[in-house]
Amino acid sequence: MQKFCSWYKPILTDSGGYQIFSLADFNKITAEGFHFKSHLDGSKHFFTPEKVIGIQRDLGADIMMVLDECAPYPCDYDYARKAQVLTFEWAKKSQDAYNSSSNPHGFQQALFAIVQGSIYEDVRRESAEQLIELDFAGYAIGGLSVGEPKEIMHNITALCTNILPKEKPRYLMGVGKPEDLVHSVDKGIDMFDCIIPTRNGRNGTVYAMDGPMAIKNARYRDDLTPLDEHCQCYTCRNFTRAYLRHLYIAKEILVLRLLSYHNLFFYM
Amino acid sequence: MQKFCSWYKPILTDSGGYQIFSLADFNKITAEGFHFKSHLDGSKHFFTPEKVIGIQRDLGADIMMVLDECAPYPCDYDYARKAQVLTFEWAKKSQDAYNSSSNPHGFQQALFAIVQGSIYEDVRRESAEQLIELDFAGYAIGGLSVGEPKEIMHNITALCTNILPKEKPRYLMGVGKPEDLVHSVDKGIDMFDCIIPTRNGRNGTVYAMDGPMAIKNARYRDDLTPLDEHCQCYTCRNFTRAYLRHLYIAKEILVLRLLSYHNLFFYM
Repeated sequence: MQKFCSWYKPILTDSGGYQIFSLADFNKITAEGFHFKSHLDGSKHFFTPEKVIGIQRDLGADIMMVLDECAPYPCDYDYARKAQVLTFEWAKKSQDAYNSSSNPHGFQQALFAIVQGSIYEDVRRESAEQLIELDFAGYAIGGLSVGEPKEIMHNITALCTNILPKEKPRYLMGVGKPEDLVHSVDKGIDMFDCIIPTRNGRNGTVYAMDGPMAIKNARYRDDLTPLDEHCQCYTCRNFTRAYLRHLYIAKEILVLRLLSYHNLFFYM
Repeated sequence: MQKFCSWYKPILTDSGGYQIFSLADFNKITAEGFHFKSHLDGSKHFFTPEKVIGIQRDLGADIMMVLDECAPYPCDYDYARKAQVLTFEWAKKSQDAYNSSSNPHGFQQALFAIVQGSIYEDVRRESAEQLIELDFAGYAIGGLSVGEPKEIMHNITALCTNILPKEKPRYLMGVGKPEDLVHSVDKGIDMFDCIIPTRNGRNGTVYAMDGPMAIKNARYRDDLTPLDEHCQCYTCRNFTRAYLRHLYIAKEILVLRLLSYHNLFFYM
């Protein structure tokens, strides 16, 4: 995959567990895996924990994720418990599949587990402790940033990082806004993934030290300052808010790249 | 404008004459200029040769174009003659406005005339000869590449370049395909403008030494060679046809840039 994309840096692939949740209308879940109907072409697929490991092996991911079930928010205690138990069963199957296979491309591939349990502290704790027993290369916290209040997200994150081993990567999935990153790093998180800097960039939201701004706002029409006066990114070194707003209003696709680039630079 | 776009190279602005033709449904032409109704917001404007010079002065164009009337194809002799006479009258007015104004930004700005006359040789000849009398900094050939057969385009181009002074830039407007560029350079053309490399790139057409290719074609699905094996552009050095086709089919906006970049590189 590195060669296909011409991306010679580490690649992490997710298992598809999140899509069980986000595309729930198209899916049916069983103890063995989940039935997935493509929203693109209607084709049907059945994904098992083992099959998902095989696919990630073939893709050549540097970090692979176990198949998990991400409970929606809100969800009742019983559902959260059921999803956590299934996620643990799948984690064991994933690990077995991982241990009994090898990378067809020859380099080492790591497998990370995913802690689930919705907003219920004892379920989260049990999920984390059981997965630690299996000794994965890294641990993710899934099932957050799905609509729950910020405070709950922060508390559950702290609860998990307190249990998960400090010497291994702790990865908060699908987070988040700049302030969430700062907060989570403070709680011990090492890794994130999120579409916010690029998707919101494409939609005209710019992140800066003074908080987010909507570039289409009329107040920037004649504003000849950069997006963020302290930023040294390509966009800020070369273009003004007025020009970027002009591109955005005129639907020039250049602006999608310039705003995404700035946001990524700001996040880094 | 250089500063606004962060583009510190020469900029050429057109007069809007082509839009009288291409957006004809929205416009009405008189001896003094043309009434333009915006297809974007419905606002109404009246453009005169003098006003168009003023706008281009203000924009800070390095090369400005006179307002002209571009006759459609096909068009009868009388219409072509009328449009050529009007274009000449406007060229005189443009030059007067140019000579009696200066660049508010302080640097030198050149004004080019535009030869019209549709496919009629004597009208083209008269247009070119009259404009040469006025002694412009450069001469463009307008009103070609508007639907006429290639052979006529090539003949009219040769007719004009034979009359226009060799020591001044001769600019063929709105052309063209790679083979048209080669042909026109052979006939003495020094400058072109055209959306083909970028617009067609965005639509998945790739130019290469073996002729154009449609990247979406199924034959490229597993093709691990670059777009053009002799090309040293960023796209060809890093990506395969299979990957670019994948991006195109998946509607990833990255491909718009990669194909446009390759096409521009190929054109250069």
